[in-house]
Amino acid sequence: MPVPPLPDDVAALLARPNPAVMATVAADGRPVTVATWYLLEDDGTVLLNLDGGRARLAHLHRDPRVSLTALAEGDWYTHVSVQGTVVSVTDDGDLADIDRLSIHYTGHPYPNRDRPRVSVRVRVDRWHGWGAAAQG
Amino acid sequence: MPVPPLPDDVAALLARPNPAVMATVAADGRPVTVATWYLLEDDGTVLLNLDGGRARLAHLHRDPRVSLTALAEGDWYTHVSVQGTVVSVTDDGDLADIDRLSIHYTGHPYPNRDRPRVSVRVRVDRWHGWGAAAQG
Repeated sequence: MPVPPLPDDVAALLARPNPAVMATVAADGRPVTVATWYLLEDDGTVLLNLDGGRARLAHLHRDPRVSLTALAEGDWYTHVSVQGTVVSVTDDGDLADIDRLSIHYTGHPYPNRDRPRVSVRVRVDRWHGWGAAAQG
Repeated sequence: MPVPPLPDDVAALLARPNPAVMATVAADGRPVTVATWYLLEDDGTVLLNLDGGRARLAHLHRDPRVSLTALAEGDWYTHVSVQGTVVSVTDDGDLADIDRLSIHYTGHPYPNRDRPRVSVRVRVDRWHGWGAAAQG
């Protein structure tokens, strides 16, 4: 699988508010998937943001490896998967990160202000593209 | 997380040709995600079908645990994740299974007839729903 930096067309695809699914590994080693918002940052890392009570946070503290597949809206034969490693887990105390994600996906700040949120930054270690994002 | 049998509304959602992402665990323990077709069978198992050369087949022989997240088309806040165990891996010699999947998703038999395909059947061990598929 190719390694970063991401080609411009792949980065451009990932920069859109695509439907996406992330996977973590649970304590017993089983994979766990869930739909997620994500944001490709200018430095090439991927921002995720979780409710502070999620079991996935425990997964990520135990094993920082994650995988994320983003589906191109309206053409999900085109999809990009990135595998990476969590490089930071921080409280999103002022909800600035979840608001960035929410605005990216919905155009509006995140409506639920009463739950603690946690920001997770993932360094992309490798990636794989299909369809219009297939590597040469 | 709830265990099967799936409630009727969740089964009905999974029965549609939804965009979906599956996760397996690689030899080094990292999670690996990729977009996939799937079919919920009448007996409650989930049919997947892979190109015979995929690394994921080796993953599944080593660790038969998979996770799949299906996104409701046009409303991907509604999504269902199932975690399960591979109960059979069989050659799809006559391409009957990939044709069933292809017809389910595209209305047409699978166009690529020259690659070996493998059918994977997954027993659902637990599931989790969000949005319109949230459990009570």
